Amino acid sequence: MAKEPIPYKIYLEENEMPTAWYNVRADMKNKPAPLLNPATGKPMTADELSAVFCRELVAQELNNDDRLIPIPTEIRDFYKMYRPSPLVRAYCLEKKLNTPAKIYYKFEGNNTSGSHKLNSAIAQAYYAREQGLKGVTTETGAGQWGTALSMACAYFGLDCKVYMVKVSYEQKPFRREVMRTYGASVTPSPSMETNVGRAINAQFPGTTGSLGCAISEAVEAATSREGYRYVLGSVLNQVLLHQSVIGLEAKAALDKYGIVPDVIIGCAGGGSNLGGLISPFMGEKLRGERDYRFVAVEPASCPSFTRGKFAYDFCDTGKVCPLAKMYTLGSNFIPAPNHAGGLRYHGMSSTLSQLYHDGYMEAISVPQTAVFEAAEYFARCEGILPAPESSHAIRAAIDEAVKCRETGKEETILFGLTGTGYFDMVAYEKYHDGKMEDYVPTDEELAKYAAELPKIG
Amino acid sequence: MAKEPIPYKIYLEENEMPTAWYNVRADMKNKPAPLLNPATGKPMTADELSAVFCRELVAQELNNDDRLIPIPTEIRDFYKMYRPSPLVRAYCLEKKLNTPAKIYYKFEGNNTSGSHKLNSAIAQAYYAREQGLKGVTTETGAGQWGTALSMACAYFGLDCKVYMVKVSYEQKPFRREVMRTYGASVTPSPSMETNVGRAINAQFPGTTGSLGCAISEAVEAATSREGYRYVLGSVLNQVLLHQSVIGLEAKAALDKYGIVPDVIIGCAGGGSNLGGLISPFMGEKLRGERDYRFVAVEPASCPSFTRGKFAYDFCDTGKVCPLAKMYTLGSNFIPAPNHAGGLRYHGMSSTLSQLYHDGYMEAISVPQTAVFEAAEYFARCEGILPAPESSHAIRAAIDEAVKCRETGKEETILFGLTGTGYFDMVAYEKYHDGKMEDYVPTDEELAKYAAELPKIG
Repeated sequence: MAKEPIPYKIYLEENEMPTAWYNVRADMKNKPAPLLNPATGKPMTADELSAVFCRELVAQELNNDDRLIPIPTEIRDFYKMYRPSPLVRAYCLEKKLNTPAKIYYKFEGNNTSGSHKLNSAIAQAYYAREQGLKGVTTETGAGQWGTALSMACAYFGLDCKVYMVKVSYEQKPFRREVMRTYGASVTPSPSMETNVGRAINAQFPGTTGSLGCAISEAVEAATSREGYRYVLGSVLNQVLLHQSVIGLEAKAALDKYGIVPDVIIGCAGGGSNLGGLISPFMGEKLRGERDYRFVAVEPASCPSFTRGKFAYDFCDTGKVCPLAKMYTLGSNFIPAPNHAGGLRYHGMSSTLSQLYHDGYMEAISVPQTAVFEAAEYFARCEGILPAPESSHAIRAAIDEAVKCRETGKEETILFGLTGTGYFDMVAYEKYHDGKMEDYVPTDEELAKYAAELPKIG
Repeated sequence: MAKEPIPYKIYLEENEMPTAWYNVRADMKNKPAPLLNPATGKPMTADELSAVFCRELVAQELNNDDRLIPIPTEIRDFYKMYRPSPLVRAYCLEKKLNTPAKIYYKFEGNNTSGSHKLNSAIAQAYYAREQGLKGVTTETGAGQWGTALSMACAYFGLDCKVYMVKVSYEQKPFRREVMRTYGASVTPSPSMETNVGRAINAQFPGTTGSLGCAISEAVEAATSREGYRYVLGSVLNQVLLHQSVIGLEAKAALDKYGIVPDVIIGCAGGGSNLGGLISPFMGEKLRGERDYRFVAVEPASCPSFTRGKFAYDFCDTGKVCPLAKMYTLGSNFIPAPNHAGGLRYHGMSSTLSQLYHDGYMEAISVPQTAVFEAAEYFARCEGILPAPESSHAIRAAIDEAVKCRETGKEETILFGLTGTGYFDMVAYEKYHDGKMEDYVPTDEELAKYAAELPKIG
């Protein structure tokens, strides 16, 4: 039964915050397919994975059975510095849309990384410190993950080495400076510091880099020096596990007021935010306790769910990482320049891919001008300037609320507002100046990359 | 009696949020001196002020008697979208400093304007809308006030015309784009749109502008067109009144846990944040109910409290605004390039000036390299990347906590963390690269500008 009135923002008390992450794989009948060793075609063992990743994170990656994984106290203490994140009732948006729908969003942007990425960064840094490592390496594109990891490493006194796609390094000097403020070393990729970087620089003189190349450099940097491991901000099962804190908090806040969402919407790049937000609700659906609609929103320019293949593929363009079974556009697919950098990934979390394949979720794709239109509309009434990634979810939520206006249906909509757009003003400027273009890959283009998928699994 | 444990962040429930602003002038024995008409040397009347400012805001400006001014419902509803702001216990900072002091900060940066400025912007926009105006004009330097006003005007459907100091307009294009996202028109100042702008451009070809010039342009733009008024983000009594919401919330949160601060610290530029934070505590001190130490922290490069004169002076370098009695370095004083743009003001709120003059407050000044050192130290343990302005208060709070370590005194320190530094990364970069310089005006320089003060009052 709903307690009234519902406040603008529902915060949990500290003692209402989750003490364990929820592992949705435990409730899945069809488990996500295992990572494969590209050399042998066999599932990656814990030992093989531990050469690259921290031991405890490997255990989490492979754990398909335990429903709850306790959150260590030190991580919970860090969470308390910026969490619980608010669950916001979008009263003003509802009024402006004149919709009978009730709209809620879980806002993850109130921390210096500007997004939900910090939830997993702090966990990964913690386990690295527990293992007695000196530091970690990673790649970053737009810079949110790199920033989050820098913050986490500063907190635990770990060295942090970030390979930043060269074009972003040059175009986003502010992001770079934020990372330096937290003591991270930031190297434009491809660099001359690694074999793979030197090889790429030799083969493509003047290249401005790519996420795939930065991943390869970060992996080499971790495996070639003592006391380092590589960490990744999305796609992996462990990341979805850590991000379940988003959904657990959202559900606890809704439960306090007896609110049950009809539809839950999130943007989808690698799947970390969407997977985290929907996890505990999906658990109820998987266990047959309650039904929900789940909607993944992806950019029309990078439509892995809606137009990709469900197949084994490389996670990186450099093909140094294990193979994952997922909805993919092919690891050779280079997404057109969409301004939502966090959604420009050719693949998708294996866990979400399996759930989508089994019919538990829907997916839609939206063009970026429509996304920025929604972003601006939202900013002007709800105040928050959203990240382009998050605005994909806003677009879908607005469209859903408008449908309710037409049908008169009083739906309860929950969406994930993953972050803020303060470092994305170049994109907003293009939108304001009418210079933003929409890109949609042709069927021929997608077929070409799909034909190049590895013949495994 | 203190309830334990004290959470990392104390939030108020919606029904615990203030319903009235607190007007500290009502409790002052010596009221702040009135604004004077520069032409007549006589106190500005409500009618004279109403040609420039909104009627209700003029009434608030002149109201030295009512202790509580109700906050209109629509403003309270807007506040609910981003307030209450968290009162944070800086557990991690305390631990890192190894201090017996208990440190709290009131964090105002969790909104898209990035600072406390929104608290007054929404109030001023509301009264403009109530008066049936079409729009408002203002100036902005670093851009926080302009952003806040743009957000407020978007919410109430008002036109918003911002004159942005040309050098900031060119160096901070992202701030400009945020304002455009909220529908504001942003003009680099001096422009060719106003008489004063054209005159300045003719006199100083190629000038990159100043806050004083932008104020003059904004005032001319407001008074020369139908249905517009000018609004200002600091210094004025009305602004301190609106900002009292910071202190009221902070006090309510502390009271919930029986916490009484020994010392309250805030950065001071025009005084809006400091005045807002300390108001209700100062009220108790003025009424003889409880004693507190209050510390204003200003940049060594612009030391109005610590090295200025208490005298009538112009509020703007263009000398078009009324005269205010305040601690001032002289309206011709041009502060050296300190990166805390929000603190580069020659004068200080009349209310705070009177309180300081009467011995109710202390003031100190700090050089900017020490400020950035504190900022980075704070960011690495508390997570939040602070604005350069706010970091003046951090510097003083850290120094106070270190003193406690030396004396063993268990002081409770409260400071105002007014905002985030996401748009200040150029300054952080200079600090990281060892290229930041400290500026301290010489006695001769200050004497020269002091000698130019108007001979009034």
